[in-house]
Amino acid sequence: MAIRYTSEQCAALLNELRSQQPLIQCITNEVVTNFTANVLLAIGATPAMVAIPGEAAQFPAVASGVLINLGTPNEQQRIAMFEAANAANAAQTPWVLDPVAIGSLTVRTEAAREIVTLRPTIIRGNASEIIALAGAGTGGRGVDSTDSSFAALNAADQLAAAYGSAVAVSGEVDIITGPGESAATTVSNGSPLLTRVTGGGCALGAVMAAFSSLTPNAELAAIAATGVYTVAAERAATRSLGPGSFAVHFLDELATITPQDVRQQLKLNRATSEGNAS
Amino acid sequence: MAIRYTSEQCAALLNELRSQQPLIQCITNEVVTNFTANVLLAIGATPAMVAIPGEAAQFPAVASGVLINLGTPNEQQRIAMFEAANAANAAQTPWVLDPVAIGSLTVRTEAAREIVTLRPTIIRGNASEIIALAGAGTGGRGVDSTDSSFAALNAADQLAAAYGSAVAVSGEVDIITGPGESAATTVSNGSPLLTRVTGGGCALGAVMAAFSSLTPNAELAAIAATGVYTVAAERAATRSLGPGSFAVHFLDELATITPQDVRQQLKLNRATSEGNAS
Amino acid sequence: MAIRYTSEQCAALLNELRSQQPLIQCITNEVVTNFTANVLLAIGATPAMVAIPGEAAQFPAVASGVLINLGTPNEQQRIAMFEAANAANAAQTPWVLDPVAIGSLTVRTEAAREIVTLRPTIIRGNASEIIALAGAGTGGRGVDSTDSSFAALNAADQLAAAYGSAVAVSGEVDIITGPGESAATTVSNGSPLLTRVTGGGCALGAVMAAFSSLTPNAELAAIAATGVYTVAAERAATRSLGPGSFAVHFLDELATITPQDVRQQLKLNRATSEGNAS
Repeated sequence: MAIRYTSEQCAALLNELRSQQPLIQCITNEVVTNFTANVLLAIGATPAMVAIPGEAAQFPAVASGVLINLGTPNEQQRIAMFEAANAANAAQTPWVLDPVAIGSLTVRTEAAREIVTLRPTIIRGNASEIIALAGAGTGGRGVDSTDSSFAALNAADQLAAAYGSAVAVSGEVDIITGPGESAATTVSNGSPLLTRVTGGGCALGAVMAAFSSLTPNAELAAIAATGVYTVAAERAATRSLGPGSFAVHFLDELATITPQDVRQQLKLNRATSEGNAS
Repeated sequence: MAIRYTSEQCAALLNELRSQQPLIQCITNEVVTNFTANVLLAIGATPAMVAIPGEAAQFPAVASGVLINLGTPNEQQRIAMFEAANAANAAQTPWVLDPVAIGSLTVRTEAAREIVTLRPTIIRGNASEIIALAGAGTGGRGVDSTDSSFAALNAADQLAAAYGSAVAVSGEVDIITGPGESAATTVSNGSPLLTRVTGGGCALGAVMAAFSSLTPNAELAAIAATGVYTVAAERAATRSLGPGSFAVHFLDELATITPQDVRQQLKLNRATSEGNAS
Repeated sequence: MAIRYTSEQCAALLNELRSQQPLIQCITNEVVTNFTANVLLAIGATPAMVAIPGEAAQFPAVASGVLINLGTPNEQQRIAMFEAANAANAAQTPWVLDPVAIGSLTVRTEAAREIVTLRPTIIRGNASEIIALAGAGTGGRGVDSTDSSFAALNAADQLAAAYGSAVAVSGEVDIITGPGESAATTVSNGSPLLTRVTGGGCALGAVMAAFSSLTPNAELAAIAATGVYTVAAERAATRSLGPGSFAVHFLDELATITPQDVRQQLKLNRATSEGNAS
């Protein structure tokens, strides 16, 4: 069986992103607002951190995509994220949910289980978070996943079926699945250094929001975002001495990576619960 | 007609800033607090992010300058910014208003139109923001200005006349005007990379607050701040591979740029609504 | 009299930290969340910025250490920090208090004087802050200490005796003291560039929380954290052109510094109120 999605499709979407410069509303955690905005600017999108009650409801109508990240869900932000999700649905603007560190932390876990019923276009998390969101686990150590992405494949399929979302599980190998019956896709690029920079996962959620504005196929959007992001990380890692220089080179690579680079370096495959199918 | 302000004056103020290390209170948006503080530290000022109700009113009396930036105006911050503006006026401490992304977003637009009546020393924004603050437009796409700075020259003059403020419009060419009848001044330095780093504009507002503590001439302070900042950006860009390395080099350049560099590289001119007069 | 603590002990704890990867809950100011998380990730710990009421009380039971930093103490954060301190005490999880910029700013000063009675494992601040916390001064210019660390030695000893805490005073020379009767220890490494990067002091508090999870000797934990941190800073400074590149190299050095580097470069000594005893 051939893979369903190709690096060629991902490369074409990168081209499209650079051309359209989508405007992405981010309601995200206070630790990574700066890095997330810089990642969006680097890749060619336009960030707008519109995250206060009142304004959060106004912006999805003009935004191309919306990110809702639960990393530091204070009371005002919880109000804002429901406003934004509802407004995004009303405006048919795609939105991404990142249920950071849910599981044992009750406030965010309750918020995540409620907001997911609004049917995000894409759900993105590490294995522990995806398993916890599907109701099958108690979560990991904060943002630090203790499970392999493959361990979350069933949970991801459940979430995809229940909410009609594309679901992306990050890990050493990233897995993306959708509500259909086809096999999930793996992305085998990246660098361990990406886990040594705070926001390495969170900013990918914003990039998914950007790609989701370019195609009605949410699964392809999540794959392309993951692919471009992890190929850029791989390229940055080759010339980095540690996490400090990696973060700098990563932003440079996001700004300079070409569709040709993606075509040549992106490694897509089909996933099974046992690992890569190939 | 000769230009009114000279690079020599700007260079002298940089020297003065390094010598006085002014203490700058910043009430700014959560996306750029870190970068803003690092920019102030790099150039030789001392940042103090004192932004909670109660304390915001206490600090302008000891600060040399105050920045009020509307980028993420949550409820507590809106209280704090009015406290700070009133306290700055009472203490005769200069303050800068940056009406980030006003126009269609109602919460910040209302806040901006109210706080501007407290007569900021300097108003700083992109063209869309300045036009919206003057009541003549509906704003751009968040922080992403869709207008040339020259398009905002009339709006800037109106604001300057109404509130006695110096008004700085950022863009490919920066324009600074004041409440007097003389021609506005353009600064033609900078780099497009500055727009690819989040906070590139916001941090300039903090630098304006620092320069405004050095001279009673607010227009000159805004010109000198813009000049030093954009010359440093221009120098940083020459050795950058993308926005990641640019941000690093920019901080290094702010720390190492000399008055002599400013004298030699700063390009000042007179502005008209048609563009540079020269 | 020989020094009580050795660079060999500090080197061994660095090894232990890399092996255990302690999970550190941070309730810190919004200016430095990103840098603090990146510092913890670089050195080999795992950050978790769990800082909202409700969740702040849940996390100390699973965390290895907790940081409470008063830099931007909004109302919600003040609730969260008392929750976390009490929960840390209940779970016997070590915690670090950083009373940023207390003295004349009333909200944080009152909060600091109340929370210190919960007996932090380590108290960390610059001289002005330590003096203000001991009730003997009115504080400095925000985070900008105007006193030498040696000027705070008596105040540090008072705090140590009153609350059973190790107390670390940062400055050109860092001083660490404890509740016992032995001489305080000085650490004479570091770089002035560390004061040109915002969060340079705040992130050290998080690193102290990480080291405090590795040994019941809080004084040694504070010394080892300071030692590793300032030796890394010293190494980074040698190849930096300014504060921008320094911050990058500093993160790289934290990730790559070896116990052997610490053994060879760390300069410990005994402190007196007159300065180094040696």
